[in-house]
Amino acid sequence: MRLVLAAGTTRTATIEGISAAGATPELMADTPAIDAEILVYGQPVSSDLVPVSPTGCPTPAVISRAVREQVGFDVTVIDAGLAAETDAPTVSVGAEPGRDIREERAVPNVDAVFDRARELGRSLPDDELFIGETIPGGTTTAAALLRALGTDLGVSSSLPENPIPLKEQVATAALDASGSAPGELVDSPLTAVEAVGDPVQATVAGLTVGALESGSSVTLAGGTQLVATAALVRAFGCDEPLSLATTSFVAADPAVDLDAAASTLDLDVAATDPGFERSEHVAMERYVAGEAKEGVGMGGALALAERDGIGMKTIRAQIAAVYDRLDPDSTPESAPAADRGDR
Amino acid sequence: MRLVLAAGTTRTATIEGISAAGATPELMADTPAIDAEILVYGQPVSSDLVPVSPTGCPTPAVISRAVREQVGFDVTVIDAGLAAETDAPTVSVGAEPGRDIREERAVPNVDAVFDRARELGRSLPDDELFIGETIPGGTTTAAALLRALGTDLGVSSSLPENPIPLKEQVATAALDASGSAPGELVDSPLTAVEAVGDPVQATVAGLTVGALESGSSVTLAGGTQLVATAALVRAFGCDEPLSLATTSFVAADPAVDLDAAASTLDLDVAATDPGFERSEHVAMERYVAGEAKEGVGMGGALALAERDGIGMKTIRAQIAAVYDRLDPDSTPESAPAADRGDR
Repeated sequence: MRLVLAAGTTRTATIEGISAAGATPELMADTPAIDAEILVYGQPVSSDLVPVSPTGCPTPAVISRAVREQVGFDVTVIDAGLAAETDAPTVSVGAEPGRDIREERAVPNVDAVFDRARELGRSLPDDELFIGETIPGGTTTAAALLRALGTDLGVSSSLPENPIPLKEQVATAALDASGSAPGELVDSPLTAVEAVGDPVQATVAGLTVGALESGSSVTLAGGTQLVATAALVRAFGCDEPLSLATTSFVAADPAVDLDAAASTLDLDVAATDPGFERSEHVAMERYVAGEAKEGVGMGGALALAERDGIGMKTIRAQIAAVYDRLDPDSTPESAPAADRGDR
Repeated sequence: MRLVLAAGTTRTATIEGISAAGATPELMADTPAIDAEILVYGQPVSSDLVPVSPTGCPTPAVISRAVREQVGFDVTVIDAGLAAETDAPTVSVGAEPGRDIREERAVPNVDAVFDRARELGRSLPDDELFIGETIPGGTTTAAALLRALGTDLGVSSSLPENPIPLKEQVATAALDASGSAPGELVDSPLTAVEAVGDPVQATVAGLTVGALESGSSVTLAGGTQLVATAALVRAFGCDEPLSLATTSFVAADPAVDLDAAASTLDLDVAATDPGFERSEHVAMERYVAGEAKEGVGMGGALALAERDGIGMKTIRAQIAAVYDRLDPDSTPESAPAADRGDR
């Protein structure tokens, strides 16, 4: 089992009000690079900054890393369009940062990126891949891609109040800029990504198609961004079994219909509940308030913990430990935050 | 504990008769890229070819991977001047392939590479680093660097018959081409690397100096290439404790004086004997005949196995398993090769 993390960026993420994947729009470009470091090394390396939302919600990289410290799965990070240097080791698929989808073309080199990712997906020796993502603004590009592919599925948000009207406005502008009507590009899936998508979509779709072709099983480890990628995989005519492992926070989002995604796209969908409401730790309370919800393979990591029989109480304690190690303001010598869970 | 592998190439390696790190000179440029894949994934990914010497001795990446499958240490690969694409995730330090050291300048961007590697060595969170190398022709650039630094230590070879006169001739030509006399560059260590060294030396020296500055312990996991890098670290004025973990094959090489290296460079030197003469497996017999000897962190990996109390008989069985998995000609269903060891 290997978790492959596709890490990228777009200019779309810098549209005011789109994403919470960074304390400020300027810091958002660094988030995927540092997420990769946290997942690989357990802490940021190229910077001292832990990515947080404007209200202080820590990146889901903290959650996935904590699970990794309990479960011990392998990680491979793909540079799927990073804008900042990262000290995490990455595999290149020739991706560049995505543009603003309101421009005519959103994703450079889309065919080459898909082909390279597909070849990598075919070649990796693992029987089972989990594939996650970190890309700020990814639910907006997901919304635009779903519309271009003619799929009527809603998207989640890293913000507690999902800015749906803004996303719809951006998605409409994206389709307009590329001169295509909703559903028109369902038979040209890479053209759809090039027009209104992001480089992580091309990378994850390529990895998934290649791995399925070589007989590996694939679980998309994420929320509605990966639902959009699943739509892309299906648009390529790939009808192999495909799973999606996400969080209870995505499942609880009223904008999201996971049952519809499962039936429309023939996905085996599971959502894991980490029981964060049982903790009083600052690392988890913003999730309970509806922030972040998913990312950096979080839903897949939680599913792996469950499969290995590691209780969520243990995972929550590890999340607190990882966070306290990272947070310069934390006081690990003080009493640990209460956890009211008995599991 | 983390094993950091610096992987690079030079044009020096293509000089006829210099290196056995590839079946042909053309394939040698791929060797470090595939070594990294074997260490990370357990098999080549970007190619079907396992690097072997002209006589069929498998790359020491097979040994280090086998130990990793028993010990479970983390690995980070640094692109220290790869010439071929690799599907192993790598951290960039801005290195490019080295030139032929008989040109005036052998290593591009040497200051930037050293600085970036030093910053990375400072930033990595691990208390203990093992640092290994894979670079064909590396003992020749090591010989030239030792001479430029005025150190009178011999170098080993991946060939059973060490081509010492050829190496001396190339090292002399390298010093001549850069207009420097032996020992003249001891106070300008990076100038020495730029003139007659290779990009892996700059990378390993930077990592080592940075890690030691940040209070981590460092073990150079390799043979005389890393003795040359230790000389470089000392030439920077860094006098922190430093270890070298190599193999019994390097220690047994009559061209090598590890005691002299230990005292001249204040190194804590250990050589581990994997007892390959007790096995009849093809993966190990060429080592017994004096080929390869070291590389891809092999000596350090064996030391880690010993430290963890894993017997060399177990390691030899794992080496056979890794090799049989890789080798298209192997017949794993036939009887396993005999191992006459009781430990």
